[in-house]
Amino acid sequence: MKKIEQLIRQRKWANGKLIQYNSQVFKAISELEKVTFRDGALPKKVKELIAVGISVVNNCESCMQWHISEAVKDGATEREILEAVEVAFEMGIGPAVVNGRFALEVMDELFKKSPE
Amino acid sequence: MKKIEQLIRQRKWANGKLIQYNSQVFKAISELEKVTFRDGALPKKVKELIAVGISVVNNCESCMQWHISEAVKDGATEREILEAVEVAFEMGIGPAVVNGRFALEVMDELFKKSPE
Amino acid sequence: MKKIEQLIRQRKWANGKLIQYNSQVFKAISELEKVTFRDGALPKKVKELIAVGISVVNNCESCMQWHISEAVKDGATEREILEAVEVAFEMGIGPAVVNGRFALEVMDELFKKSPE
Amino acid sequence: MKKIEQLIRQRKWANGKLIQYNSQVFKAISELEKVTFRDGALPKKVKELIAVGISVVNNCESCMQWHISEAVKDGATEREILEAVEVAFEMGIGPAVVNGRFALEVMDELFKKSPE
Amino acid sequence: MKKIEQLIRQRKWANGKLIQYNSQVFKAISELEKVTFRDGALPKKVKELIAVGISVVNNCESCMQWHISEAVKDGATEREILEAVEVAFEMGIGPAVVNGRFALEVMDELFKKSPE
Amino acid sequence: MKKIEQLIRQRKWANGKLIQYNSQVFKAISELEKVTFRDGALPKKVKELIAVGISVVNNCESCMQWHISEAVKDGATEREILEAVEVAFEMGIGPAVVNGRFALEVMDELFKKSPE
Repeated sequence: MKKIEQLIRQRKWANGKLIQYNSQVFKAISELEKVTFRDGALPKKVKELIAVGISVVNNCESCMQWHISEAVKDGATEREILEAVEVAFEMGIGPAVVNGRFALEVMDELFKKSPE
Repeated sequence: MKKIEQLIRQRKWANGKLIQYNSQVFKAISELEKVTFRDGALPKKVKELIAVGISVVNNCESCMQWHISEAVKDGATEREILEAVEVAFEMGIGPAVVNGRFALEVMDELFKKSPE
Repeated sequence: MKKIEQLIRQRKWANGKLIQYNSQVFKAISELEKVTFRDGALPKKVKELIAVGISVVNNCESCMQWHISEAVKDGATEREILEAVEVAFEMGIGPAVVNGRFALEVMDELFKKSPE
Repeated sequence: MKKIEQLIRQRKWANGKLIQYNSQVFKAISELEKVTFRDGALPKKVKELIAVGISVVNNCESCMQWHISEAVKDGATEREILEAVEVAFEMGIGPAVVNGRFALEVMDELFKKSPE
Repeated sequence: MKKIEQLIRQRKWANGKLIQYNSQVFKAISELEKVTFRDGALPKKVKELIAVGISVVNNCESCMQWHISEAVKDGATEREILEAVEVAFEMGIGPAVVNGRFALEVMDELFKKSPE
Repeated sequence: MKKIEQLIRQRKWANGKLIQYNSQVFKAISELEKVTFRDGALPKKVKELIAVGISVVNNCESCMQWHISEAVKDGATEREILEAVEVAFEMGIGPAVVNGRFALEVMDELFKKSPE
């Protein structure tokens, strides 16, 4: 797929640019990434699946491409990745429902009676 | 409800402060608000219901409080407001599902076979 | 427009893929969509206009394409859709202004005097 | 903790209200939640950990409270939950870095020379 | 770069369309923009750099293109723009870390003991 | 103000907890913060003002409290902070307007005629 190749090329170019700038901020981010995604109490594979779910919610295509690839390298099956994506689908609705609770409270205050 | 009163008091205080600062930006925002929420091709009530839906998705409690109150003043019923909130619930999931399409493409590329 | 066609094609492909996976999560999402967008206290057209406003705020192009098309099928005029989009423009600023209230409180605490 | 109890009470109240309204949208959301969080290719515990990570990124406190509790019921240890939270920390920076790539491209275009 | 030219062309087309619609909302937004980005206590250049940082966090490519160009016109150097982008990188992580504090509180409640 | 004190206390508690966990991820984040907010091509004060603007857009109250305080320590005046907040107000509307451009394209396609 052309889009995937483009993402990979763009990532390489931008990272190269940041190294060329000798960006200390980029160096600290790279260190942060390294210490996050390594086996710990959770195996790296599970961490990558968490990252896949977050990438979908964040709509970060470059992150999806990266963390799905990493999850596959770590042995994740197609069905396991699908289920991480499905959790992200469900979680998309979570904040809306939670935020909506306050709307219900405002309505309750304004209508001060049992629902129609 | 105490939270609602607090929101209203905080809004009044902050708006008063911005007027005290003689903020031209705040003045332009007030003008923007005024020209947006008036009867047009859509009646103000429908615009307020659109704003209720957006407030839930944005998790802006002060906006929910304001636009639900305005919608009620414009004649919206409890059930109509509920349905605007329900659209927001459903729309919470929309971007996650749309974003997830790219995850499916990456998976398709990596597994290059029919689903397990 | 090529982009619109691409969105439609990508949506069909991804939905087909999720059906092929026999995703129960996708089935539940489809049911959710169906029960949300039907005539109720609010006509479907108004619900679609609420969804158009939310799509703009969410920057969900696929959602914009879908809900604008549905609104048009339900009889929405160009001017009505424009006004739903305008509400979304205005609401973009809402959360920033509301969030900024806390910044004003922090400033008030730190400067503890009338504005300069 | 008082805040946690409040969240739980608010969730119960709001869900009760939605049932009282006989909201078909809420019913479909409940079904969606049920089919998402059950053992599949991934055990429910891993799905809950993915949801914990997403809750942090989404700043959904009610979701954090729920999914951390569920993860603990499913046997997750404190350290495992911490690592899910740590992935969310790292992923917070992901989109900013990815978005920033375009800023680098614009700079490249404008300065059309090697970095200073 | 083709993408930058496309953004500029799309912006011109959309603005032209909104003027053609005689959108009062668009007029108010233009006024808002004008009063915001002018020399004040902060020089316009610094305001443009703040806008660059926000554009990266918001993933608004059209905004990045515009505000970087404006900053350059106002005399910003490549290194100054880079540092505004770097602040945005760092700030991407801020909300995740702050949100995660509540996750730590929930964990504290559930494990009610010193960390493992 | 009680809320500000609470934020500060919560931040201290959470940071202490993360240190107690010996979180390597938290250490990397602290390093990242340190290298970002120091004098460079831009003085630290300007970086703090950029961070104030981003905090408002991100609705990160703890970040607002921190970066406004830091900006004041670095010599920022009340009016300078206000103007950073005003830029954030204006930028709230930016993405909505940019996202809305696609809505205009879809409308253009569907109505294929000059505006009503």
